[in-house]
Amino acid sequence: MLQSKLFPSTQKETPKDEVAANAVLLVRGGFVQKLMAGVYSFLPLGFRALKNIENIIREEMDAVGGQELLMPALHPKEIWAETGRFESMDDLYKFQDRQEKWLALGSTHEEVVTDIVRRHISSYKDLPLYFYQIQTKFRDELRAKSGLLRGREFLMKDLYSFHADEEDRKAYYEKVKAAYLKIFNRCGLKTLVAEASGGTFSKEYSHEFQAPTEAGEDLIVFCPAGDFNRNKEITDKKAGDDCPVCGKTLEDAKTIEVGNIFALGVKFSEAMGAGFLNEKGEKHPIIMGCYGIGLGRVLGAVAEIHRDEKGIIWPFEIAPFSAHLLAIGKNGEIFRRSGEIYRDLQKRGIKVLYDDREDVSAGRKFADADLIGSPYRLVVSEKTGDKIEVKKRSGGEAALLNSEKLPEIIARPTA
Amino acid sequence: MLQSKLFPSTQKETPKDEVAANAVLLVRGGFVQKLMAGVYSFLPLGFRALKNIENIIREEMDAVGGQELLMPALHPKEIWAETGRFESMDDLYKFQDRQEKWLALGSTHEEVVTDIVRRHISSYKDLPLYFYQIQTKFRDELRAKSGLLRGREFLMKDLYSFHADEEDRKAYYEKVKAAYLKIFNRCGLKTLVAEASGGTFSKEYSHEFQAPTEAGEDLIVFCPAGDFNRNKEITDKKAGDDCPVCGKTLEDAKTIEVGNIFALGVKFSEAMGAGFLNEKGEKHPIIMGCYGIGLGRVLGAVAEIHRDEKGIIWPFEIAPFSAHLLAIGKNGEIFRRSGEIYRDLQKRGIKVLYDDREDVSAGRKFADADLIGSPYRLVVSEKTGDKIEVKKRSGGEAALLNSEKLPEIIARPTA
Repeated sequence: MLQSKLFPSTQKETPKDEVAANAVLLVRGGFVQKLMAGVYSFLPLGFRALKNIENIIREEMDAVGGQELLMPALHPKEIWAETGRFESMDDLYKFQDRQEKWLALGSTHEEVVTDIVRRHISSYKDLPLYFYQIQTKFRDELRAKSGLLRGREFLMKDLYSFHADEEDRKAYYEKVKAAYLKIFNRCGLKTLVAEASGGTFSKEYSHEFQAPTEAGEDLIVFCPAGDFNRNKEITDKKAGDDCPVCGKTLEDAKTIEVGNIFALGVKFSEAMGAGFLNEKGEKHPIIMGCYGIGLGRVLGAVAEIHRDEKGIIWPFEIAPFSAHLLAIGKNGEIFRRSGEIYRDLQKRGIKVLYDDREDVSAGRKFADADLIGSPYRLVVSEKTGDKIEVKKRSGGEAALLNSEKLPEIIARPTA
Repeated sequence: MLQSKLFPSTQKETPKDEVAANAVLLVRGGFVQKLMAGVYSFLPLGFRALKNIENIIREEMDAVGGQELLMPALHPKEIWAETGRFESMDDLYKFQDRQEKWLALGSTHEEVVTDIVRRHISSYKDLPLYFYQIQTKFRDELRAKSGLLRGREFLMKDLYSFHADEEDRKAYYEKVKAAYLKIFNRCGLKTLVAEASGGTFSKEYSHEFQAPTEAGEDLIVFCPAGDFNRNKEITDKKAGDDCPVCGKTLEDAKTIEVGNIFALGVKFSEAMGAGFLNEKGEKHPIIMGCYGIGLGRVLGAVAEIHRDEKGIIWPFEIAPFSAHLLAIGKNGEIFRRSGEIYRDLQKRGIKVLYDDREDVSAGRKFADADLIGSPYRLVVSEKTGDKIEVKKRSGGEAALLNSEKLPEIIARPTA
């Protein structure tokens, strides 16, 4: 894409209404714009990153047999009343329409998906089933001050699984756990898989995928040997204590929860009458699991973790553009050559942003490249002669390359 | 995809709570499921069709220079109050959150997009700009009884354009009009471009893209020569009158509105202070246009128009699957051969649904293929020998083909 056409321009000033580092950099770079606390628009650059995250998630959900569907955000009260959650969920947006019918905005979809399944399933032969969606959720958060980390409206991938027995549910749970690690890894996030409360669903632990950063609102106590990982909320252990498994000294870390997986057991299927007949013809409630990833939160966590004082350093797979090509100078020949390189890279399917602006200083162009944070920066200037200067946003030396070498180099993921 | 894994099974019975033909067939085929009046889940088959429509729209919007973004559904009252529409729009969902702050659910995004633009635009050099999104809208409809045709929650593509002068706005309007015709054509809908009221926005006409069908709620009066096309709401002419342009006899048709385009003028930019400095340094409000397509409504219109008594007849480009392969018989060899053909077609990138169910009768398989409505039906049975029977869902004779011929034939769009 041509930067002269990209909306909006970057901004130098720190936005007055943002405190979280992720929001400051995402707003300054023109990735997002705040409409109200916890509610953001994704502008073209941010939308591209979001779509990349979405595509990674879709690939990995399809790989574990997920069938994609799309459920509504607008729910009748009746469906939530079946499980008692219309009253018990504090952060559910509830309101009446013009005909005084009570509605809720979905903050999660266990009720709706269980309703879909109970209408169509009768036999163990119809199971297992795995459904996922990438869909907008709403939560009436009292405090939404962490940029993209705690939203009132946010895009989420939610997967629900339906099983005839607990063994099958457990095996699938482990499969999704592995898929989640792959997803976060591809998004550039190293996550700790921490045990957490099973909530009201189950006596078992649930598992949270926690990305360490000082900006995190969670605290994880963990053993460096990897055999103990717990959310502080469910353990008396603290950093400095001995690991109850291996005796090593425990550590702790502030983290952002980017995903979680739950064993739901029969809580929803019993309440909603979602049953099946087993091989002996006996009726049983369906055993369920649910598995969530917040897409905006992944994006916010990446911005929080992969940055320096100049801007975001996008992980390769989710970067809005793999390369940022800068034409530096006043010489028409430089722009002609840059234009050629741009078109060649585009033809090869490389996502490249070309700073073709003629009335912008070199300093501004370099600052913009740092702020926008594409993995590779390419410079064409009088100094680079007939070569191109290539530099990784993540660090290291710049190198002068022949243009033929370029496509191969910048198609390679940066670390 | 294997039909044995597809959720849900088709249903023979007409759903009791649906009257519109589109909803009856879409529910029976397992494409959608109703959660409440005007609110549907898209099940895996329906989701695939919806995604195909989305991709067509995205391609054509990108082709007219649209930059894709994603705006929120949850809006603060303040932004709607700026144009007076918080009070004046009857079908806006409005409610208070836990902190008694008034919110609205977006039924359209002129206010939000104008807010984004006014924060970043200062000069005529920043214009024109074209933004679009594919996003969920909400409308507090009093009557929602037409299946997917009139939703309380629905996916919409909305494009907004921003211009420095009216001439530029008009040229872009014509460009989008052509893009819309292309989109509807690719979706299998022949549309009349009818003049309609400019609404409160403008004294000019707006244009509606109207797909003729008896199920339509609109009435269009038109000249068969094509020089007069108006929504009945804005004309005294009726079928049988003389065309005011050429004198031919006018006709009329019931239609479904699948898209519309509006000249917004400066209504929003004046109310919201979205201005720019022109070449002489004078401040002017930005001139705007808006352009909408309802994705669910396109899907509903297609289901309404392209059907027979047995089910939907999907237009090629939006069909969930291009081909439906049926293994007919009890012979293991038939399933072995069908499996081979299935894998070969998949490898070639052809979207094929394979009815691999062993315990289902031939009659049920043929009925399902008609109901699901894939453009090509492929049958492997004892009768077809070492060949494959190919039949178009849209009609015509079945043909026996060698398997080598198959990929070429079924990659071809059906009429």
